Amino acid sequence: MSFRHVAIIGLGLLGGSIGLAVKEHLPGVTTTGYDADPKVRERARQRGLAGTIADDPADAVRGADLVILCVPVGAMEAAASAIAPGLKPGAVVSDVGSSKISVSESLARALPEHVIIPAHPVAGTEQSGPDAGFASLFHHRWCIITPPEGAPPAKVKSLKAFWRGLGSTVEIMDADHHDRVLAVTSHIPHLIAYTIVGTASDLEEVTRSEVIKYSAGGFRDFTRIAASDPVMWRDVFLNNRDAVLDMLDRFLTDLAMMREAIKAGDGEMMFDQFSKTRAIRRRIIEHGQDDARPDFGRHDHD
Amino acid sequence: MSFRHVAIIGLGLLGGSIGLAVKEHLPGVTTTGYDADPKVRERARQRGLAGTIADDPADAVRGADLVILCVPVGAMEAAASAIAPGLKPGAVVSDVGSSKISVSESLARALPEHVIIPAHPVAGTEQSGPDAGFASLFHHRWCIITPPEGAPPAKVKSLKAFWRGLGSTVEIMDADHHDRVLAVTSHIPHLIAYTIVGTASDLEEVTRSEVIKYSAGGFRDFTRIAASDPVMWRDVFLNNRDAVLDMLDRFLTDLAMMREAIKAGDGEMMFDQFSKTRAIRRRIIEHGQDDARPDFGRHDHD
Repeated sequence: MSFRHVAIIGLGLLGGSIGLAVKEHLPGVTTTGYDADPKVRERARQRGLAGTIADDPADAVRGADLVILCVPVGAMEAAASAIAPGLKPGAVVSDVGSSKISVSESLARALPEHVIIPAHPVAGTEQSGPDAGFASLFHHRWCIITPPEGAPPAKVKSLKAFWRGLGSTVEIMDADHHDRVLAVTSHIPHLIAYTIVGTASDLEEVTRSEVIKYSAGGFRDFTRIAASDPVMWRDVFLNNRDAVLDMLDRFLTDLAMMREAIKAGDGEMMFDQFSKTRAIRRRIIEHGQDDARPDFGRHDHD
Repeated sequence: MSFRHVAIIGLGLLGGSIGLAVKEHLPGVTTTGYDADPKVRERARQRGLAGTIADDPADAVRGADLVILCVPVGAMEAAASAIAPGLKPGAVVSDVGSSKISVSESLARALPEHVIIPAHPVAGTEQSGPDAGFASLFHHRWCIITPPEGAPPAKVKSLKAFWRGLGSTVEIMDADHHDRVLAVTSHIPHLIAYTIVGTASDLEEVTRSEVIKYSAGGFRDFTRIAASDPVMWRDVFLNNRDAVLDMLDRFLTDLAMMREAIKAGDGEMMFDQFSKTRAIRRRIIEHGQDDARPDFGRHDHD
């Protein structure tokens, strides 16, 4: 591990999990942390999310070889500017944001003299804040690194080794492709979930209490995703607009076809569509990206 | 328990779970079963899904006080006709179908002389077939009974007691309201999940392998629901068309508003919408309708 000191800016679910994962998996590596919210810093100290929690962002990164910005993508530029005075020359600045073109641009604007290598660990839960993190969050999950043109290969290699050290499998991708892939595997699913949960809450003839009682018919699955952090997700949609709109329009085209099939009573079309989708689930489970137990294992608690 | 002999027609996830649940919770009650597929009957005998598995539907219901049809809603009428020769006078015929107006009409057509009391246990997993059932499927889940006008109150009461005996909480509702409530809490979520999983599988610039690898960003949740039985779900959409189209159009209106907000960069609108939906998740968990562990408890296996 060529990074000996890692600074974490933002101590919510992702930042906190990185701190705990470093402590567990890379015991020789020093961590420092910072969060703009004093209450979060206080809680981070109690949980030991980093070895030292600084009260100033520039102090938090002083001496660090690797700085990871774990703030909503709309806050990246300000966070990068705030650490600038403390950054040592040659330090790698990375992040965990869900959209990579905009983050890459923001960080380059704020830190034109530094080595910037954006990254995105595809991992998370619906919870947020300093109590949400845990050391195994990145186990068996993919981390996508999107090095800008001219990024020093040795530093990219070190960042790869860092994420592998936390239990991830690493993929290198260009930022544009990342943003299109994540639009479909993450951003559109969140947009749909937030929307349908909103639709269901606002109905007049079906009460909210009925929606809650009968949610086990499928709806409850969407409420998990729709419980995600609103600031983080607002920023994702503001920062990955083009790819999200493109994928959304494809989904809307397909949904319009389904609507026509239902209207026309076209059972054959529906059967064909509904039969194609089981295979994807099977492959996701084979690839270790989801729990094989029925119903995510919920009934194991019965 | 006023039913002493329960016949189960269709031995997949629901029928099999009823058989196993009766054995576990109502040990004095006799069960007989039938499935149109000889391989399913064979497997049902091995697993003991009912006390006796008959090779003929009329034989399966002979002497039963309660017959529960556990077949896709499009197959209800044929199943009801097939049991008619064996039905004893006064037996209650019920079902577990996900749409109640159409099932009520189908059963009344096939069995004009019998007592019909449709029901819908709001429980299930994405799996199907004779190996999928388990005795605790109905624990803490709601069962909605939709008695037609003129249904004998004593028989309705007995059916309520039966489902309570299997661990469910019972609600009485009219069929029309049921179909609207379930359109939003179950049918639209399934339609959306099937559609987005189909959209993601057919993209050219994002490979299926990428969709699978990065599915932990949210997409994988939808694949669980989209792995549900295609015949069952085709039939639901053919049989609850009006309520589904109505709810789908409300969802599409809300999604169009979200699309406009993304296009216009309206962060305030998005933040407001995304902030409203956490409360619903919290209440679903408080009401015991979902697992409180983050990420459905998936990380408990790490």
